Order: sequence, then C-alpha cells, then structure tokens
Amino acid sequence: MAIILGIDPGSRFTGYGVIKKENNKFTYLGSGCIKALSQGEDLASRLQTIFAGVSELIIQFKPDMFAIEQVFMGVNPGGALKLGQARGAAIVAATNTGLAISEYSARQIKQAVVGTGAADKSQVQHMVKTMLKLPGTPQADAADALAVALCHAHSHTSIAILAGQATKTVRGRLR
Amino acid sequence: MAIILGIDPGSRFTGYGVIKKENNKFTYLGSGCIKALSQGEDLASRLQTIFAGVSELIIQFKPDMFAIEQVFMGVNPGGALKLGQARGAAIVAATNTGLAISEYSARQIKQAVVGTGAADKSQVQHMVKTMLKLPGTPQADAADALAVALCHAHSHTSIAILAGQATKTVRGRLR
Repeated sequence: MAIILGIDPGSRFTGYGVIKKENNKFTYLGSGCIKALSQGEDLASRLQTIFAGVSELIIQFKPDMFAIEQVFMGVNPGGALKLGQARGAAIVAATNTGLAISEYSARQIKQAVVGTGAADKSQVQHMVKTMLKLPGTPQADAADALAVALCHAHSHTSIAILAGQATKTVRGRLR
Repeated sequence: MAIILGIDPGSRFTGYGVIKKENNKFTYLGSGCIKALSQGEDLASRLQTIFAGVSELIIQFKPDMFAIEQVFMGVNPGGALKLGQARGAAIVAATNTGLAISEYSARQIKQAVVGTGAADKSQVQHMVKTMLKLPGTPQADAADALAVALCHAHSHTSIAILAGQATKTVRGRLR
C-alpha cells in the first residue's frame, strides 16, 4: 500500500491530488487547489502559502510518495521565474520531510492516464474521473494533480512488474 | 540593533552575507556560499540543500531582517525556471520562520553600495570590503549577498530618518 501526493504547480494555483494504491487498485483520497494569489499579497506571502499548504497536506495525508508535474516552459522568462519560485516552494515542503520527489512531463502524464501524449485537458479530466470512480469531474488543477499521482502509480507499477514485483527500498522508504 | 541576512540566489551557488547594524554602524558577521550543485545530485536534493542551508543560517545568526536580490531575467526561460526554483527554496526558508522579506534590484543594490546603478562587480566587492572593514576582498557571491544586506540597511536607515527615527513594528518585529 502506498499513498501518493501529486502536485501540479503554478504561481497562482497549485493543484493537489492524493490517491492510495493497493494491489494495483487506486482509491481517491482527496484533491483541491492551493490558492496563492490574493489581492495585495506579496511574493513572500504567496510562496509561504504554497509551502505551508503542501506541508499541511503531507501532515494530513502522510504520503509515501510525492510526484510533481514538470512545467511547460513557454517563452516568457518572467513567467518561468514565477513558476519556478512556486515550484521550488512546493518541492522543499516535501524534501524537508524526507519525501523523495518524482517528476513527470505533461506528455508522460497524458500517456499514462489517457494513453496518448497528445490528449487534451478534458480527456485527462474524464480518465481521472473514470479511473478513480469519482461522482463528478474534478476541477482542472485538481484533475491534473490526480493525473500526476496516477502517472507515478503506473510508472511504479511498471517498474515493479519489470522487476518481478520485487520491493525496493529507496531513501529508507519501502516502495 | 538589527541583524540582516542578505541572499544572492542562484541555481548553483547561493551567496549569503550577514551584517549587524547598530546606530548606523555596520559590522560584518559572516558570509559565504551555499553550493547546491554536486555532481549527480537531482533537482530535489539541490533545492533541499538551499532550503536547509538558509534555515541553518537563520538558526545560527538569528537575523531580524532578510533581504534578497531580485534576479536578472535574461532571455532564457529554462534558466529563469531554475533560478526561480532556487529563489523559492531560499525565500520559504525565511518566511517559514516568520521573517519578513525585502527585495532589491541589482540596480538599487549598486546604487546603495557604490553610488551608481551602473557599477561593475569589482566596484561592489571593493565597496563591501571598505564599508565592512574586511581584511580581504570577499568572493563574488558572498560580496553580492553582503551588498544586498548593506542595501537593505541603507534603505531602512533612510526610511527611519524620513520618519524621524521612529521605530516601526512590522509583522511583530521592531525595526
């Protein structure tokens, strides 16, 4: 059994999704969005909101694994800097508790969840809803974060199958 | 009396400088560089090194103020993302302890320390050495971080003078 926290980082909204993986079955535990943009809030407060939010999720859900989406680079250095700061705040909230971090590209995530790296957002939302048997379609940031978590669960499963279901200890954690 | 921690963030080297300001006199307390790039280290480990390094400095020097250089943007989104991640890790190490953050542009820092926003690196190093009565010229990253701290001390002094040397409480700290 492993609990996986998936994070879709953003300078304004950081999506999160938590799933439990047990015998190749996935259960939904929670999802949502950390809103780091309130009017009048400065950079430091916004980053602290992300750091404190992710730290709180780790305390609440006690994940065994932390997976984060690699960000789309775009062409705007100012936007990349802001996104990098948000991402740095989210990552150290996890590393600070000793959690190992896995990163997946948007393409890898779509491939794992929808079966094609070229899937669009609504397909991801639909597959996340189906795979986790959710009663409704999750909001986009939350769906992306749940997709990261599912992608990590799949990658891990594939590795375990390749390795003959051998358990591996990485950084002191059994996975 | 106030202790100021200045940080010059970078994805590979994060410079730090600590000064004490007392009655408009500045005393050098320490400076150096957090090296976040070891061969084979992944992103998460590098960010954790920065976060842990800055957290350690805050425990060691107990600064009252935290000042950080605004980064030069360049034109490379990949570089801006890396720098942003490093900067985010450094900033949340400070916000996590309740420290307020001040940001200064390279131009403001050079203006405060050398007297012109167009000063070059060697002039900054020279003035930092002179202002803090250092026996030798500090290494570039450390000098930049000390310059951020001096810039903050100056800005703060100016504000205090403008306000008739009134003490101000910001976020529960007397400054």
